[in-house]
Amino acid sequence: MNIKVVVKALEGYTSCDVADALSKLKVPHGGFLAGLTMWSPKRQDGPTKVVGPAYTVRYVRKNYENEPQPSGHYVSSFHQHQYSDERLISLQIDSIPSGSVVFISAPARSINACYGGLMSTRAKYSGAVGTIVDGRLRDLQEHRDLDYPVFARDVGTTAPAETMRVAAINEPVRLNSDDQDATIHPGDILVGDLNGVVCVPQHLAEKVIDLIPSQLEADEKVAADIKNGRLVAESMKEHRSGVKKP
Amino acid sequence: MNIKVVVKALEGYTSCDVADALSKLKVPHGGFLAGLTMWSPKRQDGPTKVVGPAYTVRYVRKNYENEPQPSGHYVSSFHQHQYSDERLISLQIDSIPSGSVVFISAPARSINACYGGLMSTRAKYSGAVGTIVDGRLRDLQEHRDLDYPVFARDVGTTAPAETMRVAAINEPVRLNSDDQDATIHPGDILVGDLNGVVCVPQHLAEKVIDLIPSQLEADEKVAADIKNGRLVAESMKEHRSGVKKP
Amino acid sequence: MNIKVVVKALEGYTSCDVADALSKLKVPHGGFLAGLTMWSPKRQDGPTKVVGPAYTVRYVRKNYENEPQPSGHYVSSFHQHQYSDERLISLQIDSIPSGSVVFISAPARSINACYGGLMSTRAKYSGAVGTIVDGRLRDLQEHRDLDYPVFARDVGTTAPAETMRVAAINEPVRLNSDDQDATIHPGDILVGDLNGVVCVPQHLAEKVIDLIPSQLEADEKVAADIKNGRLVAESMKEHRSGVKKP
Repeated sequence: MNIKVVVKALEGYTSCDVADALSKLKVPHGGFLAGLTMWSPKRQDGPTKVVGPAYTVRYVRKNYENEPQPSGHYVSSFHQHQYSDERLISLQIDSIPSGSVVFISAPARSINACYGGLMSTRAKYSGAVGTIVDGRLRDLQEHRDLDYPVFARDVGTTAPAETMRVAAINEPVRLNSDDQDATIHPGDILVGDLNGVVCVPQHLAEKVIDLIPSQLEADEKVAADIKNGRLVAESMKEHRSGVKKP
Repeated sequence: MNIKVVVKALEGYTSCDVADALSKLKVPHGGFLAGLTMWSPKRQDGPTKVVGPAYTVRYVRKNYENEPQPSGHYVSSFHQHQYSDERLISLQIDSIPSGSVVFISAPARSINACYGGLMSTRAKYSGAVGTIVDGRLRDLQEHRDLDYPVFARDVGTTAPAETMRVAAINEPVRLNSDDQDATIHPGDILVGDLNGVVCVPQHLAEKVIDLIPSQLEADEKVAADIKNGRLVAESMKEHRSGVKKP
Repeated sequence: MNIKVVVKALEGYTSCDVADALSKLKVPHGGFLAGLTMWSPKRQDGPTKVVGPAYTVRYVRKNYENEPQPSGHYVSSFHQHQYSDERLISLQIDSIPSGSVVFISAPARSINACYGGLMSTRAKYSGAVGTIVDGRLRDLQEHRDLDYPVFARDVGTTAPAETMRVAAINEPVRLNSDDQDATIHPGDILVGDLNGVVCVPQHLAEKVIDLIPSQLEADEKVAADIKNGRLVAESMKEHRSGVKKP
């Protein structure tokens, strides 16, 4: 199935519909990436939906004397010493493919932001459909003025160059989390709305699209039954038995 | 005092007024349940107030191979092996008494949601006045479209059945917290508004209603004094001396 | 430079512009105070900007039997035993200088709020331009009804007197944080908007004002270039070379 067809199909569903299908396909937590919520165009409100293949950027912590050093060990696969850190930050944003969802990963618990207004300006020009920041965003009003969707972990005010540098573009990135183990691969389909963000592994996208309609149909029947006073247990027993299984 | 009279009386006050009275009655932190905030009908905005006796549902973690196991020990008091986990989830939502506030407790730091749109549809049909989720809610737009109040710790996308199961209905549940020790008992009066949620122990409800008016009256006089330029210290000294004590 | 001139100049910029200048001046994290966000007049929305010299109030934990004791050691520099704790709380709010930004520090991870509606009523009367609470605020609707800006870590319902007391007024206070080391000194210029709060050390304020305009001018040119399809890397290389350095 063509990627455009996949995206078009998924745009008709909520992140929860997608997660339901992924749960059936045994993807842990239905692909949910906890902690990444909508900041632009509105704060977790309205019909905004972002669907597209992931274009990933990974920042790593620089040796920053004012903060404790991370105990882990980072391997840079990208950093080329002929470029300044600031130049690398702008290079990654110039390479965004049209239709993609930019996924930017900052080092865990970063105080500095890793995404700002100029980057959304370029991302929008490049035809990206939205950006998801596993870290802090800044220039909040600028993203909103662009009417460009941005999801993030939190807000911030300060540019990244002081404390972090770009280490990898379009390589797998791990979600910053103490509670779950999730990795976003380039090309995975990211689906974001006011409930949060779900990551659909590329090879499961067609199966997800195949599974959703009969689930949705059953849930609509259950909702109608409930409004007519029928018990949830009873209605689910009837309507969910016919739901498509993987 | 009849429960309907208690609820009617408390509906006239904010969660802060109620907490002030509970503080005087030596309830730790004035009964505040930190971290549970309004998501529907709006995000911590507007005049929404939820007041009613707690109907509690407690989920526990299932043996879930993709995640670390909890170190504690859960005792299931409800799980009946003739029912599937999904059926248990729907059974608890079919038993909500009219006028109640549903309090749903998920295992601490759950990634999966434990509350969704169909449950609000049924809760509203049953005459519940709102739901408070010590965990994640999903289907955010559905709750808002129902104009049904839901408070929660955070949002999510994924159904509960993969990682948790219902273990107890209408038994005491402990708040998920590293910082405070609070337990919600069935029948306790839950009061929620844009400041958060307060739990009024059932046997203290009448005392709370008795204590609030003179406190409110004093605070209104202090506010008026301040707007006329009087010092807070001076005004409080005068007006708070007459406030009713337990 | 007169403090009024400094404030007037900074009011024309966002917290991000100010952080950019502070980063150049080697202030860690560009002076950003992570975790303190706008709650009033709106929740992280709209053009609200707060700029003014800090008037600081520090609360410390009382010996509170219902909670674990802090392992650290607090030194009270203010507590005068002829005043009650409640009276001290009101005394500090009566002494706010016109034009200042009130910065109130609660003990880390406090469940009780340390700031409420009467305090904003007085702060507004005193001519304060806003309040920043490193802790919980309560009476959210009252601050909004006053159209008075309040930033805070979170919401709450319960008055402070049960668990904390005022220990110091207009002395340096340390930000509650596990991830950064920041101290707010009385007279530092606090700048808050929908991105968060930045603290400008008093002796750097003029340098910040001197550095911002050429940075802003360059960024505007880059934004214009991007909208015309120019690469970010290329445009930044041209326009940022002329940006003023400290």
